[in-house]
Amino acid sequence: MKNNRFINALLRQPVDKTPIWLMRQAGRYLPEYRKLREQAGAFLTMCKNPELACEVTQQPLRRFELDAAIIFSDILTIPDAMGLGLHFVTGEGPQFSKPIRTAKDVNNLMLPDVEEKLSYVTDAIKLVKHELADSVPLIGFAGSPWTLACYMIEGGPSKNYQIIKKMLYDAPELLHILLEKIPQATITYLNAQIDAGADTIMVFDTWGGILSTAAYQEFSLAYMTKIIAAIKHERAGVPIPNIIFTKNGGNWLETMLEANSNAIGLDWTIDIGTARERVGDKVALQGNLDPNIMLSNPKKIRQQAELILQDFGAHPGHVFNLGHGITPEVPPENVEILVNHVHEYSAQFHAASPSKA
Amino acid sequence: MKNNRFINALLRQPVDKTPIWLMRQAGRYLPEYRKLREQAGAFLTMCKNPELACEVTQQPLRRFELDAAIIFSDILTIPDAMGLGLHFVTGEGPQFSKPIRTAKDVNNLMLPDVEEKLSYVTDAIKLVKHELADSVPLIGFAGSPWTLACYMIEGGPSKNYQIIKKMLYDAPELLHILLEKIPQATITYLNAQIDAGADTIMVFDTWGGILSTAAYQEFSLAYMTKIIAAIKHERAGVPIPNIIFTKNGGNWLETMLEANSNAIGLDWTIDIGTARERVGDKVALQGNLDPNIMLSNPKKIRQQAELILQDFGAHPGHVFNLGHGITPEVPPENVEILVNHVHEYSAQFHAASPSKA
Repeated sequence: MKNNRFINALLRQPVDKTPIWLMRQAGRYLPEYRKLREQAGAFLTMCKNPELACEVTQQPLRRFELDAAIIFSDILTIPDAMGLGLHFVTGEGPQFSKPIRTAKDVNNLMLPDVEEKLSYVTDAIKLVKHELADSVPLIGFAGSPWTLACYMIEGGPSKNYQIIKKMLYDAPELLHILLEKIPQATITYLNAQIDAGADTIMVFDTWGGILSTAAYQEFSLAYMTKIIAAIKHERAGVPIPNIIFTKNGGNWLETMLEANSNAIGLDWTIDIGTARERVGDKVALQGNLDPNIMLSNPKKIRQQAELILQDFGAHPGHVFNLGHGITPEVPPENVEILVNHVHEYSAQFHAASPSKA
Repeated sequence: MKNNRFINALLRQPVDKTPIWLMRQAGRYLPEYRKLREQAGAFLTMCKNPELACEVTQQPLRRFELDAAIIFSDILTIPDAMGLGLHFVTGEGPQFSKPIRTAKDVNNLMLPDVEEKLSYVTDAIKLVKHELADSVPLIGFAGSPWTLACYMIEGGPSKNYQIIKKMLYDAPELLHILLEKIPQATITYLNAQIDAGADTIMVFDTWGGILSTAAYQEFSLAYMTKIIAAIKHERAGVPIPNIIFTKNGGNWLETMLEANSNAIGLDWTIDIGTARERVGDKVALQGNLDPNIMLSNPKKIRQQAELILQDFGAHPGHVFNLGHGITPEVPPENVEILVNHVHEYSAQFHAASPSKA
């Protein structure tokens, strides 16, 4: 890999500069993305067309000196492949026409044939890998079983997640049957992504943070742990590191170490310095700029990025990122400012490193 | 006060049983509330009519052995009194027809004449106090300046709070001018509530949890601290304790101690035992059952309440509550089960208390 900063940082190896990529870096804030999307018609059409997904994945890399690409896809590809009828309603986000509500629904749920139903993702990964030509690593990903279950049971985004919470408290054994099924598909899916060329795996737990500590451990973290244990950790002798990310999971960092992931993603509500003190040398950390800072001015963006880099300090194991996905309103020039400044300013924290990436 | 458990717990004094009340205990889950609301037509009409507000405040107390009443009102009464045009849109929550967006808006914002514009709240408090006849204490409340500013600037609930965050990062001095104005009104308002008979004050910081640690301290906690310092702490020699509550504030408990409140409210995402270890004997804690447990069955409700009581253990200074407001879908009989069980089960933790409430 020509630029291996991202992988090295995940493995807590020395780097010359702190690597940076942005969650949702291929997306609506880019005019070239909006243009392609207008032509394609729908978000899912783009995800399911390997050529389009490959093109969109590369768009931010043509503009910015990002240290990683992430395959353009969605966390809901698995429930879609399970036949739940995924569609996107403007202004309301993802919806399933056949949500999972009853014991019969759970028991009838079939594991998807990943090779057949999700080949559009692995095909896109192969195309991207060819195009990237080992310039930067490519991130493959999946949603956490709990987060997928939230969408599958609620049928879409929800305010209070009352339907899944009612199942959690009233019929936990039923919810566990569902939560056991999902990782079976996810593990096959992530290993197929690795076989196709993904250099890192990230598991997105968008809704773990709505749980109590005990429920988080039992219904979300346990299943992420299972996935991290079962996916490949190398390909042809080259390490394939992994990252878990629970939004609003700052309370649970010590517990999250139990997943044995290489890295933990942080949202912006916890200081990365405090987080590092709590996890020590056990894991790399990814994050954690408030995405809304990207709406601000260059001076503020640089200043806030510096605070995070200072707070993490001169340790190995930091991947710079936002604390959540970049929003459509962000001016692309602000991303350039952030990416360049993180590289320039962070060099001082890696000056003493014995080897450089 | 015939039942002083709630006040004693807030002051970390011995009690015979752990006191309990529920955020939004007067509300849509009660058929008698829905009936009155149908007659009144609108939520704000009920808030602004002291007789109706008094009646609604008492409704849950007629059904359940709650240890406190909370005045039926809304956190947005202050911006409404400032002339921002508060109205409620079905399914969309509160909206302001004149949101604060510019320096001119901030500078032109007038402090309300609390005595004139908010007398409906103090009048309702006086009526409730008469009706309660010192059976249980009455809670008065206000929104935190940050939370009110979120609504005032965004104009209603928001997904990403981009408008106020942009002001926070681009024009922090302007946001501070607004945040300085709000407590001036809030302090007068809360002291008027105390003069009218409120026995405890709670400050609701619903949206502090969307901030980074540094921004929380500067833009939310600092202004709650100002309020707690300036409001009355006793009336005729009787202590008037206070509570601050930041949803998703579990990361910041040690910092929240700086507000010098008598108690800190917890949502359900942090273990109350862990929280108590972190704050020690410095403050009472209020919480923290997941409101969605109230949709479940009696056995689960009792079991989960027991876990919280066990986790807090045999210390003074626990007020049982939900981690957020009760939702309209909760069967009222589940509230009865919870309230009675908290009283029955908690007695064992107070058996060694030298004096009883």
